[in-house]
Amino acid sequence: MSCRRVLLWGLGAIGTGIGEELHRRGYELAGAISHQVGEDLGDVLGVRRLEARVVAGPGELAEDALRADVCVIATASRVADVEQQILWALENGMHVVTCAEEMSYPAASRPDAAELLDEAARRAGRVVLGTGINPGFAMDLLPIVATAPCLEIHSLAVRRVNDLSPFGPSVWAMFGIGLSQAQFEEGVRNGTIVGHTGFRESLALIQRVTRLAVDEVVEEFVPIIARVERRGPRGPVAVGQVAGVAHSLEARWRGRVQIRLDHPQQVDPGAEGIGTGDFIEIRGRPEISLRIEPEIPGGVGTVAMVVNAIPSLDTLDAGLVTADGMGLPARRIPEFAEGYA
Amino acid sequence: MSCRRVLLWGLGAIGTGIGEELHRRGYELAGAISHQVGEDLGDVLGVRRLEARVVAGPGELAEDALRADVCVIATASRVADVEQQILWALENGMHVVTCAEEMSYPAASRPDAAELLDEAARRAGRVVLGTGINPGFAMDLLPIVATAPCLEIHSLAVRRVNDLSPFGPSVWAMFGIGLSQAQFEEGVRNGTIVGHTGFRESLALIQRVTRLAVDEVVEEFVPIIARVERRGPRGPVAVGQVAGVAHSLEARWRGRVQIRLDHPQQVDPGAEGIGTGDFIEIRGRPEISLRIEPEIPGGVGTVAMVVNAIPSLDTLDAGLVTADGMGLPARRIPEFAEGYA
Repeated sequence: MSCRRVLLWGLGAIGTGIGEELHRRGYELAGAISHQVGEDLGDVLGVRRLEARVVAGPGELAEDALRADVCVIATASRVADVEQQILWALENGMHVVTCAEEMSYPAASRPDAAELLDEAARRAGRVVLGTGINPGFAMDLLPIVATAPCLEIHSLAVRRVNDLSPFGPSVWAMFGIGLSQAQFEEGVRNGTIVGHTGFRESLALIQRVTRLAVDEVVEEFVPIIARVERRGPRGPVAVGQVAGVAHSLEARWRGRVQIRLDHPQQVDPGAEGIGTGDFIEIRGRPEISLRIEPEIPGGVGTVAMVVNAIPSLDTLDAGLVTADGMGLPARRIPEFAEGYA
Repeated sequence: MSCRRVLLWGLGAIGTGIGEELHRRGYELAGAISHQVGEDLGDVLGVRRLEARVVAGPGELAEDALRADVCVIATASRVADVEQQILWALENGMHVVTCAEEMSYPAASRPDAAELLDEAARRAGRVVLGTGINPGFAMDLLPIVATAPCLEIHSLAVRRVNDLSPFGPSVWAMFGIGLSQAQFEEGVRNGTIVGHTGFRESLALIQRVTRLAVDEVVEEFVPIIARVERRGPRGPVAVGQVAGVAHSLEARWRGRVQIRLDHPQQVDPGAEGIGTGDFIEIRGRPEISLRIEPEIPGGVGTVAMVVNAIPSLDTLDAGLVTADGMGLPARRIPEFAEGYA
């Protein structure tokens, strides 16, 4: 078991949550790269002092911060934004786990980068793994696992209804929450409102394992307009304003729906009587109807998926490992955390 | 892809279902060992003639029946009853997949046999895998997968409520269905009524992955007495007769319930307003409440778990592989079944 020393790259809400949990589980935090430059990492995480500084870039890391077994990258969503960070970590002999959404199946958006990262990881004898709650679990791995007792699959539909109330201002902005419909449409046009990142990756994961044929993919992206006032910790959303986004993807074969992914994300859905949850419907033999209510929470879920993946890294073959290659997904605590609940 | 040719050992309801589905997916059926001696395997399976005979024992198999990549063993529940069959298949160069309940985690009942089978499999360079719906999925792998987004687990409860109506007379006898309470108690004493086989295996799988500490295991086994008449394809169960068995296991640590497995199995539970389903409750951070309603059906589910495991055999390291080591559980069809829905 060599995966005990971890370098954190990115200390936003997710990166901080990962750092706290790693500390709680007995991992050694080697250091961190983030914008809280000069602070002690323990202070940033709200744990005891760790005598590990937060620095602005990898070039400023102390010698002992480079002796990490794993680099956890929680800086961005896109392959383009984490690619160089991953290559740097591999060159320094570290495994990489990242919650960058596109990295759950990088070949879906960037086949060239996926190949390059796989080669670099093999050369370094290390693993690069992308995971998270979604993509990475709720709308891909869990429905894939639900197919295990099936002889036939005629279609597969996944619906994830969540509540954005607890999320921060950057997430609210990404969904255009509180805007008028006209402002929302302008935001979609200029690319500031992007909705969910991960449908292409989830679809690719589902298709790769189930081998369901697809010849047409239709994506929809429409604002959810508040019909009653929505309330959240960040203030209300008035009637007529954008409360969220209904994002969906339909994968068809010869006109027939094979896979449908539905992901309405909004503030305070309960105000309009909408319950949250993760719903999987498999039509086939047998039919499987699975519900998790309320939904698996996004933030803590992503932190857990990343942290729980670390004990498996040394058991996987070197290379780029996509979410479906991490073995049986599970909560896995390290050997050295003996006695930990 | 060499896993294309399969030898069937056991042609009961499950073995026959496996044979049919393998044929449908384009596998070659090399032959079968069962009591329908002398019949063409295709006739037994209800498909086209296969020019493969059913024989009474391995010594009677034709030369080409021995050239199989995989032997599927669906003959019995206990390690003791399949151990020699598995060793024979390994000696003849075949992987083994079996739905023998105890083989999902053979070390739970027979650590000596588990070690011996592992050694034999490694020596043969082949895989031995035990799987099925339960044990093998509903009450172990699926709850394990549901822990993946968890930081903490305080307790884990799994409840599987199923309907025994569609099962055959041997299953009815195993649960004492239709007996008086006194007859049931006599059957439990003389060992003819055994209830569910698999709790020890499911518990071992859950513990091995989650590492939840356990210092006391309490098993309960009580008859479910019909309070209204129950109806099924095999005739009614009268008021006052045994309609099934409520079998449960509680694994505690320092007096606290860590893992609870509940498996009431009965004929026509709907007659008393009891809905069937698979229910998983994880107390921890976050809490996960998962429901599959109705329950994943037992028969077809076990057939699917076995058949879906075959394409992964060549990707696993040689040895005894327990259900948690089969990688990501999923419906997996072979490469040569291109175009198959």
